[in-house]
Amino acid sequence: MSLYNRIATGLQQDRKGYSLPRDLYVSEEAFRFDTAVMLKSVWLFACTVAHVKNPGDYFVFELAHNSIIVVRGRDNQVRAFWNTCRHRGARICTEQRGRAPRLICPYHQWTYGLDGALLAARSTADDFSKADNGLTPVALENVGGLIFLCLSDDPPPIDRVKADIADQIAAYDLEKCKVAVQDNLVEHANWKLVMENNRECYHCDAGHPELISVLGTYGFGKGLPEDGHADVVDDKAFDAMVEAKRAQWQQLGIYRELIEFPDGWWHRVARLPLANGAVTQSIDGKLACRKLIGPFTEPETSSLSVWSQPNSWHHFCCDHVVSFSLTPLSADQTLLRTSWLVHEDAVEGVDYDPDHLAALWRTTNDQDGRFSMLNHQGIATDGYRPGRYAVEEKLVEDFKQFYVDRSRAALEGLA
Amino acid sequence: MSLYNRIATGLQQDRKGYSLPRDLYVSEEAFRFDTAVMLKSVWLFACTVAHVKNPGDYFVFELAHNSIIVVRGRDNQVRAFWNTCRHRGARICTEQRGRAPRLICPYHQWTYGLDGALLAARSTADDFSKADNGLTPVALENVGGLIFLCLSDDPPPIDRVKADIADQIAAYDLEKCKVAVQDNLVEHANWKLVMENNRECYHCDAGHPELISVLGTYGFGKGLPEDGHADVVDDKAFDAMVEAKRAQWQQLGIYRELIEFPDGWWHRVARLPLANGAVTQSIDGKLACRKLIGPFTEPETSSLSVWSQPNSWHHFCCDHVVSFSLTPLSADQTLLRTSWLVHEDAVEGVDYDPDHLAALWRTTNDQDGRFSMLNHQGIATDGYRPGRYAVEEKLVEDFKQFYVDRSRAALEGLA
Amino acid sequence: MSLYNRIATGLQQDRKGYSLPRDLYVSEEAFRFDTAVMLKSVWLFACTVAHVKNPGDYFVFELAHNSIIVVRGRDNQVRAFWNTCRHRGARICTEQRGRAPRLICPYHQWTYGLDGALLAARSTADDFSKADNGLTPVALENVGGLIFLCLSDDPPPIDRVKADIADQIAAYDLEKCKVAVQDNLVEHANWKLVMENNRECYHCDAGHPELISVLGTYGFGKGLPEDGHADVVDDKAFDAMVEAKRAQWQQLGIYRELIEFPDGWWHRVARLPLANGAVTQSIDGKLACRKLIGPFTEPETSSLSVWSQPNSWHHFCCDHVVSFSLTPLSADQTLLRTSWLVHEDAVEGVDYDPDHLAALWRTTNDQDGRFSMLNHQGIATDGYRPGRYAVEEKLVEDFKQFYVDRSRAALEGLA
Repeated sequence: MSLYNRIATGLQQDRKGYSLPRDLYVSEEAFRFDTAVMLKSVWLFACTVAHVKNPGDYFVFELAHNSIIVVRGRDNQVRAFWNTCRHRGARICTEQRGRAPRLICPYHQWTYGLDGALLAARSTADDFSKADNGLTPVALENVGGLIFLCLSDDPPPIDRVKADIADQIAAYDLEKCKVAVQDNLVEHANWKLVMENNRECYHCDAGHPELISVLGTYGFGKGLPEDGHADVVDDKAFDAMVEAKRAQWQQLGIYRELIEFPDGWWHRVARLPLANGAVTQSIDGKLACRKLIGPFTEPETSSLSVWSQPNSWHHFCCDHVVSFSLTPLSADQTLLRTSWLVHEDAVEGVDYDPDHLAALWRTTNDQDGRFSMLNHQGIATDGYRPGRYAVEEKLVEDFKQFYVDRSRAALEGLA
Repeated sequence: MSLYNRIATGLQQDRKGYSLPRDLYVSEEAFRFDTAVMLKSVWLFACTVAHVKNPGDYFVFELAHNSIIVVRGRDNQVRAFWNTCRHRGARICTEQRGRAPRLICPYHQWTYGLDGALLAARSTADDFSKADNGLTPVALENVGGLIFLCLSDDPPPIDRVKADIADQIAAYDLEKCKVAVQDNLVEHANWKLVMENNRECYHCDAGHPELISVLGTYGFGKGLPEDGHADVVDDKAFDAMVEAKRAQWQQLGIYRELIEFPDGWWHRVARLPLANGAVTQSIDGKLACRKLIGPFTEPETSSLSVWSQPNSWHHFCCDHVVSFSLTPLSADQTLLRTSWLVHEDAVEGVDYDPDHLAALWRTTNDQDGRFSMLNHQGIATDGYRPGRYAVEEKLVEDFKQFYVDRSRAALEGLA
Repeated sequence: MSLYNRIATGLQQDRKGYSLPRDLYVSEEAFRFDTAVMLKSVWLFACTVAHVKNPGDYFVFELAHNSIIVVRGRDNQVRAFWNTCRHRGARICTEQRGRAPRLICPYHQWTYGLDGALLAARSTADDFSKADNGLTPVALENVGGLIFLCLSDDPPPIDRVKADIADQIAAYDLEKCKVAVQDNLVEHANWKLVMENNRECYHCDAGHPELISVLGTYGFGKGLPEDGHADVVDDKAFDAMVEAKRAQWQQLGIYRELIEFPDGWWHRVARLPLANGAVTQSIDGKLACRKLIGPFTEPETSSLSVWSQPNSWHHFCCDHVVSFSLTPLSADQTLLRTSWLVHEDAVEGVDYDPDHLAALWRTTNDQDGRFSMLNHQGIATDGYRPGRYAVEEKLVEDFKQFYVDRSRAALEGLA
């Protein structure tokens, strides 16, 4: 426990309605705790099934110094393994994404199957057992096409998440999608501040002019009619519009009630109307890909949004999916990976323009990167004191509470 | 105390007449101690009033991870605040210097007056009090136009410094000056070595040929006739010259006795003759600005120099002021900020050439940066042992003693 | 001891036949332990006598933050001193290699003789003693022209090493050689992984196509007939070839039995045949320098190889010598310095082409740098577990055992 005294103290000092004490955001100790303890006790979003579309496709997920291979087998199953050879530990997959018929360590050519089994190793001792030297597996769950990992040997339950969101996501059939664009943005802020930034649109009016012309801000932290934030929303025109939309959505069979981190769980899903006649989350609101996906045969003016604690969010439009994952690199650096998925039959340059497809969120990510950096810098100064969240920041506090609860539990697990 | 065991040990090992033990110069622990404890217990020079010339002008002072806004109010008062929003802590002023009618947090637009009062914040809870959420002030003192800050809630006295030097500096009327050039140089050395380098001219003959052709070296660590270093100076020609000068200075009303860190205080002030007929501290000794400042109506061949512990020095010439402040960035990096001030009515390109104005000290700073780097590198090696200061290095030891005394007191304050 | 708890634990967990526990390879604590304790308890290879060929020639050896001057005196003796001035500790020699009639501190010109004696210092106190302020010596041994240092005040014995290898090396007369090329390569791996990489050729077939076309792999980790690795070698053609070679070598007077880390000592020496008719370790197997060295008057198809724990290896060919030393820079960075020596009378552009001379090992070093980096990255991931060394990796384990034994002894020395 003495390794994490400042964490324990910070968690005790945390107050409902306020941002966290400084050490929990910016200290090296918090980074070590988060990456060695807290984040290993929960499920983390890694990628979609479209990132490992064919047998032999692999995707490398990083968490601080950790590296995990997500790979699709010849049997079409997606599995995960630690990215370290059982011989002398060399990194096996050296690209972030790639395709390989077998996993071969580049150092001494120990060769593993896509299922992790050790197939070949030269000059081993007589009593060496190949069967005991396969790649070490990592827990993996496929939730409607979203791949979650848990780096613990004893993963927490995930059944409620699957029950609540798998079928809604599955309607978009990610197995029939491909990754059209993938951005890797390093933000100069602690990962928790990148998450807090995602969980409110209190900063959108001034900070994201492009985004709000397409998305509106309702639902992105400002609440929805059905979630009881009458004080926040209180907009009869919006209520009526949503009411009308809902009837359409029910007719299309794509409507379900808002699910918002129920009973301490870590998922939120909502169908939300787009703004200003937009039919997708593109920079101009116009279709980003001519081949539609999922149940859609013609453009539709809403999107399905999924948020998970502690590291992802996703928007499912009629023509593409945009999926965000983040992972801490250091106490003050976070990798935000954004992937844009389109129909597998869509042709680049014909059905979609990658720059047009990515422009809206690429612009928004850059803006958010600056906000998170300023947030980190300001918290790092000795004059920082935890501040009151605004009413519109309820989902920020939901994230903070998740972090605090899981951290306390993880700390107790160490004792 | 256990956080700073190596500091306590180092302070015990320190010997009169010798440089400090290694850990106090180069260890990460010393950096943490200096920036979290020692330097917060003393007054630090931040900038001049000319850096915040008009209402709304701000100057951001950094100390390691800390950031403080120095800003002039509509009432012409200069104040200081922690550069962190009371909402979720974002950095408010993102430029090192600028001008703003109000201080607006770029993240969520919480808006503060130049006096720190919170003026506007959207979507706050019903029981939120603006009056309780103004910017947090930092202690500030204006000494004749030099702005000092103390990051402690309980600043030490500063009255003797004011009494001794404020009027001499005030004669130069910094409120009527403007910043013509500001250099930010990152030196690759611990801040204490940058200070020690400033406190002797034992290295000048070989190290600063440009500087000594204009300044001479007397007074810059080599003592003055009146300070009793007969063994160092012992130069009758110099004595006679100073004697003659003194009469002129008295006639001009600009002479006063040397003040040298009296009774453990942290200021030194001396009027010193320039060398080789120079009328100012410029690369060729010629006027650097045609508009004179302070009491001067024609060129005069001396300058007033002010040194303060632990982080500044300043030279007041008849045509400009050059002001140096330093601040630690890391255990082995120090920011040296040099500002050249001229009369507010001086016109760039007409009355002064910025490159000519800055050339002498810019050259000297670069030379000193290398010396301090080599000093740091050599101390970092295990073979280093504290060495004897030379006789000419009395002011180096004065600085060292200040550091040791204040560090001991600050450590005791923690216990 | 509490400073190095993780080291003590790691050393206890180490198992015969397996790579080290993770913390010993990649932790900051291991880097501190290695550079502050373990590596200071042993002899380290610094350079050859050819690196300090003439009086006044100096070579700066680094170990993490440490810097040591190796310098040849007017009496032709090679000595070592800490690279830190006895005044205020500045670094004295600021280039990695150079020549100077005296060692003059660039800060305040304190001047030392090549034997370390303080010759001149201005402005010192009356009771200052020059005799007490010479440069601090570092233990140095010259083994047949290879210079070893020990940073401890109580160096371990080196007599057996001298007895076993000095005369074989001396046959190449390094005093008559000069440094033709010196490469400084920073590898992104812990120094122990760079060493392990050197101690096996299990990775050569796939990893070093250029190298094995010239060297073959026998002897480089794959054993020799005489060392009893019948299970590894078991190649009658090779045995016969070596047998025939041996007769030639005995005729030339250059043959002696394999010496392989005898009785826990730290040296290995072997004469090995080159492959495919190569007469030297060059990229095409052809002479790299027309002036031969040592006992050779015509090209000969073998080389003498010397390996030492914990940081060097050397190959002596008939026309040149290539010498490798490594030194840790940080937990995950290692400096590999490779020097190619030729006869002092050889003329660049006439007798040798520096690029041709260096091409083989420069190529090989780059390949090895990548392997070591991947090894470090893979060990850093939490899924790493110590793995079984292959049979061909006996010399890797010899290195590991040396590290473990000396580390245990050094840790006990601290207790």
